[in-house]
Amino acid sequence: MADQVKEWKELGAQLRVDSIRCTTAAGSGHPTSSMSAADLMAVLLSKYLHYDWSNPHHPNNDRLIFSKGHACPLLYSMYKAAGAITDKELLTLRKFGSRLEGHPNPHVLPYVDVATGSLGQGLPIGVGMALNGQYLDKLPYHVWVVLGDSEVAEGSIWEAFDKASYYKLNRLIAILDMNRLGQRGETDLGWNSAAYAARARAFGWHAIELDGHDVIAIDQAYSEALAQNDQPTCLIAKTEKGHGVSFLANKDGWHGKALNADQAKEALAELGGERHIIVTVPKPEAKQPVSTPPSKPLKLPTYSVGGKEATRKAYGDALVALGAHRPDMVVMDGEVSNSTHADEFKKAFPERFFEMFIAEQQLVGAAVGFGVLKKRAFASTFAAFFTRAYDQIRMAAISNATIHLSGSHAGVSIGEDGPSQMALEDLAMMRAVCGSTVLYPCDANQTAKLVAQMVDLPGISYLRTTREKTPIVYSPDERFPLGGSKVLKSSAKDRVAVVAGGITVHEAIKAYETLQKEAIAIRVIDTYSVKPIDKETLHNAAKETDGKLVVVEDHWFEGGLGDAVLDAFAGVGERPPTVVKLAVKKMPGSGTPAELMNAAGIDASHIAAAVKSLL
Amino acid sequence: MADQVKEWKELGAQLRVDSIRCTTAAGSGHPTSSMSAADLMAVLLSKYLHYDWSNPHHPNNDRLIFSKGHACPLLYSMYKAAGAITDKELLTLRKFGSRLEGHPNPHVLPYVDVATGSLGQGLPIGVGMALNGQYLDKLPYHVWVVLGDSEVAEGSIWEAFDKASYYKLNRLIAILDMNRLGQRGETDLGWNSAAYAARARAFGWHAIELDGHDVIAIDQAYSEALAQNDQPTCLIAKTEKGHGVSFLANKDGWHGKALNADQAKEALAELGGERHIIVTVPKPEAKQPVSTPPSKPLKLPTYSVGGKEATRKAYGDALVALGAHRPDMVVMDGEVSNSTHADEFKKAFPERFFEMFIAEQQLVGAAVGFGVLKKRAFASTFAAFFTRAYDQIRMAAISNATIHLSGSHAGVSIGEDGPSQMALEDLAMMRAVCGSTVLYPCDANQTAKLVAQMVDLPGISYLRTTREKTPIVYSPDERFPLGGSKVLKSSAKDRVAVVAGGITVHEAIKAYETLQKEAIAIRVIDTYSVKPIDKETLHNAAKETDGKLVVVEDHWFEGGLGDAVLDAFAGVGERPPTVVKLAVKKMPGSGTPAELMNAAGIDASHIAAAVKSLL
Repeated sequence: MADQVKEWKELGAQLRVDSIRCTTAAGSGHPTSSMSAADLMAVLLSKYLHYDWSNPHHPNNDRLIFSKGHACPLLYSMYKAAGAITDKELLTLRKFGSRLEGHPNPHVLPYVDVATGSLGQGLPIGVGMALNGQYLDKLPYHVWVVLGDSEVAEGSIWEAFDKASYYKLNRLIAILDMNRLGQRGETDLGWNSAAYAARARAFGWHAIELDGHDVIAIDQAYSEALAQNDQPTCLIAKTEKGHGVSFLANKDGWHGKALNADQAKEALAELGGERHIIVTVPKPEAKQPVSTPPSKPLKLPTYSVGGKEATRKAYGDALVALGAHRPDMVVMDGEVSNSTHADEFKKAFPERFFEMFIAEQQLVGAAVGFGVLKKRAFASTFAAFFTRAYDQIRMAAISNATIHLSGSHAGVSIGEDGPSQMALEDLAMMRAVCGSTVLYPCDANQTAKLVAQMVDLPGISYLRTTREKTPIVYSPDERFPLGGSKVLKSSAKDRVAVVAGGITVHEAIKAYETLQKEAIAIRVIDTYSVKPIDKETLHNAAKETDGKLVVVEDHWFEGGLGDAVLDAFAGVGERPPTVVKLAVKKMPGSGTPAELMNAAGIDASHIAAAVKSLL
Repeated sequence: MADQVKEWKELGAQLRVDSIRCTTAAGSGHPTSSMSAADLMAVLLSKYLHYDWSNPHHPNNDRLIFSKGHACPLLYSMYKAAGAITDKELLTLRKFGSRLEGHPNPHVLPYVDVATGSLGQGLPIGVGMALNGQYLDKLPYHVWVVLGDSEVAEGSIWEAFDKASYYKLNRLIAILDMNRLGQRGETDLGWNSAAYAARARAFGWHAIELDGHDVIAIDQAYSEALAQNDQPTCLIAKTEKGHGVSFLANKDGWHGKALNADQAKEALAELGGERHIIVTVPKPEAKQPVSTPPSKPLKLPTYSVGGKEATRKAYGDALVALGAHRPDMVVMDGEVSNSTHADEFKKAFPERFFEMFIAEQQLVGAAVGFGVLKKRAFASTFAAFFTRAYDQIRMAAISNATIHLSGSHAGVSIGEDGPSQMALEDLAMMRAVCGSTVLYPCDANQTAKLVAQMVDLPGISYLRTTREKTPIVYSPDERFPLGGSKVLKSSAKDRVAVVAGGITVHEAIKAYETLQKEAIAIRVIDTYSVKPIDKETLHNAAKETDGKLVVVEDHWFEGGLGDAVLDAFAGVGERPPTVVKLAVKKMPGSGTPAELMNAAGIDASHIAAAVKSLL
């Protein structure tokens, strides 16, 4: 034991030394936030973390998430100690082109599962990973999440605490690095370890208070955590920011500051200088996920042309069809599954459905957790409420995660419930996500076909569905390639092209019929793929109408379908067409869908008027 | 007492009856979620709520927030019982043009302070209102927040619990209507009153468990809450959804469903039929806010042309200048005030600065609370982290609230910290907010002038600031009207106009200088006002360059400045110009600002190349 204690202390010192060395080499970064957790990580790395460094994607690897992503100098120092990266690479921290970015990023580094750096997101993702191990893959891996004390002020952390105990995730272990100091001073709870423990316990966790620099206490706490059978564990480790160096330890004013060369020299001397220990990290048992039921042929639901169905219902129906075909699918919802119709999947495959209750940040976080462990995760809620998780969605793109989101109840056409329930910014929000795909079907058959394609889409994909039942305009054998569109009405005499998506497609068809009676021919284009958008069809329409387009959408004026269409004409080439945008411009209230679409100026009558304004 | 008990029971029955009547008349809505809290509200309205119905904006009125906004049939029934609205108006619920929308909306109804309907937002706003009463106005009003049990799963609720106890808000009282049933089944804690109480206590609140249908217990609990001196109180009231009607009470499957005419008749019979009691609601003491120090003349900071300063620093300096001039100003930050420079205000006016720690939802919620009580609230964090509060910002617009947001560290130009800290979607997000103003200064003098204008802007205003020090290009006496822009370089020979904002303005100037050497004249336009945008200057530029524009921004390709410029040319009129958009298209990493701007294709060299592509 004495030898092991000495080894842990040496490793802890090395992790501190390396955290200082790499940040000093970078000229920026967070050495002191790394040093507080170094002893905790030394014990974890050499005894508890089971990880195959030659195979970062081994399904039974433990998962280590630095929710306090700014402490990545420590994480990268652990990679060096594990022999996964060289000392030379460690010193490339924060340099252009280095894999060692200022916050951990799986785009470039295979040992990092998820991007962190926006605080409070690691634990909700860890919940998803632990759910995967416990309920789907049935593997004994542990998920270790290093939390900063400042980030425990984020509500997303408590969403995760709540769900972790609800689902009895005993292999989820949070390590709270309670170093007392935030960026600009003391945290709201300081070193009040008892308060953190009381909160964790009230949320159903096993909590252990300990000295985070006492390696024996750390060892005992990890053992105790592993012994829990039906509760997740939170270690509340009292630590010092900058521990081990007298001029840094527990001193304010050192957050996010690299030491200069002289300071680094002094600090290293106090820490006993450079070390280059390589630790033998325990490997995971060679277990594989439990086998899943065989895939059945895909048989999508179909709807009869001329009938009516809500695209949200078709989403639910399609999930069920896909569920039988894709055993790797998992579905979640934010307590509105009977509105989004994700409950259809729940009824068919209860073992692959997870209720996240009204906690949208956790909903998306869990989807990311499943996604990085190769599940095809679908998460749904009212489209308006994905605004609650925009930071998580943004970060999911940095995580290189694949998640599938479906937002129902888009736009003023939801009617009586009023503006709080209307998604009017979701297209803008989702378009502005790196590498995202944004889909907006207008009928049930189209919805089913798009959901079937979503399942294999990498990155962040988003489907916008409508509350109201809309006419079925496409036959079940129609195809809807991503990046495509459908020309629903066209002739050689088209004078204006109307570009619509979702519910406004049906208004555009009505306008077509009205205008036909007045001998005004218009083209109607259904842009079900908002991103990527079908540039070719739009350019043809512009050419053939002498540059006259009307775009109509149930969304705010800014950032939605209208802007996507304008973007399609940006760049060097032919002079862009005239585009009249019809969109929601003032705050809607309650009313019938028809009343509200009329008041917003996006119904058939306004489309017809806009067409005429261009003639 | 016996009389009072009888009165309360009668009033509770009336509130239930009216909740049923108005939803049945509407054909939709949430009667059962209203009925569970009817007894709690009957006692509150007739004895505890101090409110002047003839003056909803009396500064010493108690505030009543239905955080569970879908229970507004109950809220509107209380308005009727208080004599504030007629029975006839009550029955207009959810009709087009009615003030009684499907969720409470202050746009149309003066007794509603803030819009709710996106769950978990009422309590954080209540924290802002209670902070205002306790620390600024120093008025004894109480803030009563009715919480649904489902919404307690939202992390934003726990951000509010944390801040309310931190600031010892003893006049904030949460009434948790624990009716056990959510939209699609049981909540995760059901009727586990002890669990809710343990959580509330662990977060520093006084908690009272009670039977929410026992009016004597309710009366005692309110009394006990009012007696607290340094803690907020949470009542955990065990209730039944649909209480009082045997076929509704505690029955699943009745969420958000109106009774049909027959069901309503049966329910009313069981409840003893219609009543039209008018309650005498206690009035507030006729107190006014404490007087504030006199306003000093505004003396904005100035910076010398040719020097360098970060716009975020100018934001902090301008806050200090405005703080002396505007005693109604209040500033908050999310634990990064030494980065956003809001700490300058904190040093100058500590009594008007509130630290919200790392809890962006609470940060914006508190700003809304201050805003509706007529304070000019500025809230700042890294621009990227406002994505965490997009739902709150969206709802603030529905609340008709006036809040001022400032997001620092925009774009790839922050450098080494990497993508998690880079705001690349904030312009898209903030443009797509109803009635918002979006500002993006490029130098310190411009920043100061814009901040000075923000303070009087109604609605949601947003200022995007830059991490790096940028050259001072404007003299301190330059004017920057909202909706304007600045033509920094122009001549009669301009062949292309480059439209830039913030940090890219300086790249555009560099490109101008390079191209000048090659005898290629370009116009450089600084669009500091992204929304509203200066259409006239853009149209003139298009005309005078024969329709050749380059737009360059440190933001994703979608939804930002480029789309704002394209939008300026939407609509009937001259054929739009060719617009080449330079924006961030792939995931950035770490590096120096110059390296990252080059890699993103938004620096001077790429601007020059884009200009040439148009020639």
